[in-house]
Amino acid sequence: METSREIAIGIDIGGTNSRFGVVTGDGAVLKHDRFPTRTYSKAEDYVEALSHKIKEVVKDYEEYAFKGIGIGAPNGNYFSGTIEQAPNLVWQGVIPLTDLFKRYFDTPVVLTNDANAAAIGEMMFGGARGMKDFIVITLGTGLGSGIVVNGDLVYGHDGFAGELGHCFVYMDKGRKCGCGRRGCLETYTSAQGIKRTVFELMAEQTRESELRKLSYEEMTSENIFEAARKGDLLAKEAFEITGHYLGMKLADAVAFSSPRAIFLYGGLAKSGDMILKPTRKAFDAYVMNIFKGKASILSSDLNGKQGAILGAAALVWKQRK
Amino acid sequence: METSREIAIGIDIGGTNSRFGVVTGDGAVLKHDRFPTRTYSKAEDYVEALSHKIKEVVKDYEEYAFKGIGIGAPNGNYFSGTIEQAPNLVWQGVIPLTDLFKRYFDTPVVLTNDANAAAIGEMMFGGARGMKDFIVITLGTGLGSGIVVNGDLVYGHDGFAGELGHCFVYMDKGRKCGCGRRGCLETYTSAQGIKRTVFELMAEQTRESELRKLSYEEMTSENIFEAARKGDLLAKEAFEITGHYLGMKLADAVAFSSPRAIFLYGGLAKSGDMILKPTRKAFDAYVMNIFKGKASILSSDLNGKQGAILGAAALVWKQRK
Repeated sequence: METSREIAIGIDIGGTNSRFGVVTGDGAVLKHDRFPTRTYSKAEDYVEALSHKIKEVVKDYEEYAFKGIGIGAPNGNYFSGTIEQAPNLVWQGVIPLTDLFKRYFDTPVVLTNDANAAAIGEMMFGGARGMKDFIVITLGTGLGSGIVVNGDLVYGHDGFAGELGHCFVYMDKGRKCGCGRRGCLETYTSAQGIKRTVFELMAEQTRESELRKLSYEEMTSENIFEAARKGDLLAKEAFEITGHYLGMKLADAVAFSSPRAIFLYGGLAKSGDMILKPTRKAFDAYVMNIFKGKASILSSDLNGKQGAILGAAALVWKQRK
Repeated sequence: METSREIAIGIDIGGTNSRFGVVTGDGAVLKHDRFPTRTYSKAEDYVEALSHKIKEVVKDYEEYAFKGIGIGAPNGNYFSGTIEQAPNLVWQGVIPLTDLFKRYFDTPVVLTNDANAAAIGEMMFGGARGMKDFIVITLGTGLGSGIVVNGDLVYGHDGFAGELGHCFVYMDKGRKCGCGRRGCLETYTSAQGIKRTVFELMAEQTRESELRKLSYEEMTSENIFEAARKGDLLAKEAFEITGHYLGMKLADAVAFSSPRAIFLYGGLAKSGDMILKPTRKAFDAYVMNIFKGKASILSSDLNGKQGAILGAAALVWKQRK
């Protein structure tokens, strides 16, 4: 059967809301919707309610073959099908998520973390089609990464590989990180990271900026992008600094797996050249000679295209190989 | 046929000398010898002379099936079979090494860099038997790395992946590296690196040390190990510092590929606990919580066992899969 006549459900689980959608094998999102996450204090209740909703939705697509459910979730483990100790979810401990879904579905149910799902999505439906070695960096509240080597995701022996957000920019010093250590990349290059940089710049400089009107709690990376777009020099400098750190650490990542391309996805990546230019500049300056001119830093093809749902659904087809 | 009745030739090409040996499929080195490298200003002449020598040697093992030649060489590229711009070899430019050997042999001829060969050797004949995710760090004049993910070496899109020696300990500063940049790991944690640390300590401190009797050109990492073993405090501190840098950066490497173990091989690694203890201590202190207690830092099983020849020969069997 042609993959265009197949569908899978992609679910992107976030702390407050989940998003899910009906995706065809050639990457069309036929329908998508939101579903509350935080409302359900028990994962069992969440899965039961969402499963009923999915069953209803799938009924509308009876002319397609329903191939399964793919799920991207924070700390989702591909091997065990569990979500483990996810700080942003109300469900604590180890949640046997795929087992819970399998109570309601006979099809495959596949789970991985959100950044790995983004990488699989990029490979099946995005700019990485045809590539065997690439990396996707997700720039959301934190920094996630999905690393593909020789056509397969790098899961590591325990399913938790690909934590580039927790490689060190500074050893022994630098910003405190939610992981309990200091100097991790995501404390500099994420929605939170660029905000911390803005606050550092506001403290250090006397330069005027419209960002001085916002409290720490109010400010979002969209505010910073909007200010930079309008020419706010402090906001622009924050983007320069963010790209500089990211480009430097991507030079390290290339020394590890020598990918053909690195795709930036989500939140901050939507600011386009504002983040891409300084990232590429630092990357070119710091990458080892033997890799110069080989790896491209690109904006993900899935930005603004329900990429998280596409990536999650892609797991179902990628799983079958 | 049982692999114990098969042999391969393993060749380890060094700047001054090469070593080669006859290896059985179950990892016995039946015979090994040296062969000059630098003497031959042309790679063609080197390969011709060495091929004749190998043919003679193989004659003595006619009861075995001769399966091929595996070669570990600086900057050896698995995909192209070429040695490219190797700074320590007299042959400059791009040397089509496997093609040159194939003039003399009908069997497979497989080339990769020395650290990748060490990793394949560890997987077939050493401590990584049965592991699908591990890293071998070679601590020689420089620092090389062979990374195995899901049972396969990470070559990257161009065959040059696995340059952990050129990840940054310090960004923008730190020691000058042969690669033209600053702050690379191998400038701290290699035979050269520990010597540079000793010289830094001799400049900074007034502490007596037998190492003060040696010039920079005279001093080797064996001198430093010997002094440390006898209780020389400055030499011991140099090992502490070296292990500290190595352990910190291995914490980053684990965030990348989440290996089950990291093996230290060669030169400095032969100093055993002197390097292992501070490396493990720093690793435990810096590794991300989710990886704590999962990845072991071990001495390679192939240290002192013709490991470079074993690793090179292992390429022949690994190739066949």
